[in-house]
Amino acid sequence: MAQNFVLVIHGGAEDKTREDISPEKEAGYRKGLEEALDAGYQILKAGGSAIDAVEAAVISMENNPLFNAGKGGALTIKESHEFDAAIMDGKTLHAGGVAGVKSVKNPIKLARTIMEKSEHVLIGGDGATAFAKEHNLQIVPEAYFTTEEKLEDVKKQKQNQLKHTSKDTVGAVALDIHGNLAAATSTGGLTGQHEGRIGDSPIIGCGTYANNEVCAVSCTGDGESIIRGTVAHEVYALVKYKGLSITEAAAQAIRLYKDKIEKDRNLIALTPNGDIAMEFETELMFRGYRKGDEAPYIAIWED
Amino acid sequence: MAQNFVLVIHGGAEDKTREDISPEKEAGYRKGLEEALDAGYQILKAGGSAIDAVEAAVISMENNPLFNAGKGGALTIKESHEFDAAIMDGKTLHAGGVAGVKSVKNPIKLARTIMEKSEHVLIGGDGATAFAKEHNLQIVPEAYFTTEEKLEDVKKQKQNQLKHTSKDTVGAVALDIHGNLAAATSTGGLTGQHEGRIGDSPIIGCGTYANNEVCAVSCTGDGESIIRGTVAHEVYALVKYKGLSITEAAAQAIRLYKDKIEKDRNLIALTPNGDIAMEFETELMFRGYRKGDEAPYIAIWED
Repeated sequence: MAQNFVLVIHGGAEDKTREDISPEKEAGYRKGLEEALDAGYQILKAGGSAIDAVEAAVISMENNPLFNAGKGGALTIKESHEFDAAIMDGKTLHAGGVAGVKSVKNPIKLARTIMEKSEHVLIGGDGATAFAKEHNLQIVPEAYFTTEEKLEDVKKQKQNQLKHTSKDTVGAVALDIHGNLAAATSTGGLTGQHEGRIGDSPIIGCGTYANNEVCAVSCTGDGESIIRGTVAHEVYALVKYKGLSITEAAAQAIRLYKDKIEKDRNLIALTPNGDIAMEFETELMFRGYRKGDEAPYIAIWED
Repeated sequence: MAQNFVLVIHGGAEDKTREDISPEKEAGYRKGLEEALDAGYQILKAGGSAIDAVEAAVISMENNPLFNAGKGGALTIKESHEFDAAIMDGKTLHAGGVAGVKSVKNPIKLARTIMEKSEHVLIGGDGATAFAKEHNLQIVPEAYFTTEEKLEDVKKQKQNQLKHTSKDTVGAVALDIHGNLAAATSTGGLTGQHEGRIGDSPIIGCGTYANNEVCAVSCTGDGESIIRGTVAHEVYALVKYKGLSITEAAAQAIRLYKDKIEKDRNLIALTPNGDIAMEFETELMFRGYRKGDEAPYIAIWED
């Protein structure tokens, strides 16, 4: 098939209704999604790789203060920033992840550098920052990440006055013209989380997974629920062994063991055929996709 | 069925032949496995829970300098100790994990405390040590963990003279008389690993997984390969969706995508019926099990 390339992105899932987000802010989110989608799409259109496309889309959202990743990352209970991210190449099953890293401008670039330059898959904390410095990635002062909005959030959260705890994530899955799948996910974590808390994003099989034969998945939502449900790999299993379509698999995977795992699991997924799933249980998921010569699709709430 | 309770343990998998381990050391390993097996078995026999049994078995091996976990943990390239561990309750799908923690005598106790007392599943680095202190777990000086043998290993490794890099793990899976499954895994990591490297052990779905409906799994071997293969959850998927027996699922899971994931993946697994798998690709896996009124089984190499 000619020109079968697809990029799907998400900018997090939240329990905010249309009333909770101002028109100005909504316009900002839509613009941010468009920019991220375009950053990855242009790579795919030029014949570039899925792994380059997902990285570019995630970098775009990491640099945008509206999203809870990189620049706009949530603050921990200690009012510091700790980032989780992972990337996986569906062709080679190589992966790289970073957990609880500080001071690295683009955690997804560090995840990719770990995938390509380290014998390890996952590196955490100060060791991850050290690895970033060894490989000349951009280090920024703590102040770079501190937006007034997120600082206000953690202060309210400490007083139990925060209505919506930030638990967003950004992510992308892509299929390139060479038939390769890739997935990338990046987050600033939960507002007010315990120092050192690691969510699902950097965990292969939970928040991030890609395998050329089956699917690519990136999750967002309650990280603990996503880990306990091993959500990304559950989607893979339901497609591969139960023969479900990607939309059926996504719908089942986010609701599996619902009697035990109550909180929200949400995801985007993509198959080698270019079939897409964007499944969420929250009020909204910032999301979009663009396929071949089609126009871009951007959405926030259910249509 | 009456008295259907089972404990299965491993003390790591290595590429050492019978010639590589002295009869005295072999006797030490067998005694260590017997002690760990007994610590968990007595709990199950008295009607205790699977989660208590796997924790007790792992604590026994963490306290034994022969195994690469707790007391006998491998050293990082900086000659420090960093521990990974996780525990999962198959009944509730609750889980706790700790990544790259220092100074905590029994990392598996910390993992369990995170499962029970934290809203998080996984905590890493200094945040994990802080959490251990907040919950009065035993903190020990770095010197407690430093055995002469492991110090010698990392020095040889730096000179590329180490024949067998330590990448062992200890683990346990159990079925109690109430029909509950649990899994626990703990490790000192790889000899000479990069500071902050996190392996498969604390990753739910990779090194550790338990689900009453399907199986409990604990892995050991090359952590990066186990993560890339999402091995524990792959076993679950092959049993649940492909209908394989636990031995067939274990054998397939550790060899899946062998053209891409070359290094060794090894595991123990257990079903709600008490069926056992102990599958390894290395020369040896320190292992044992005890079922109901049967005598204990201990083995190192293939029989």
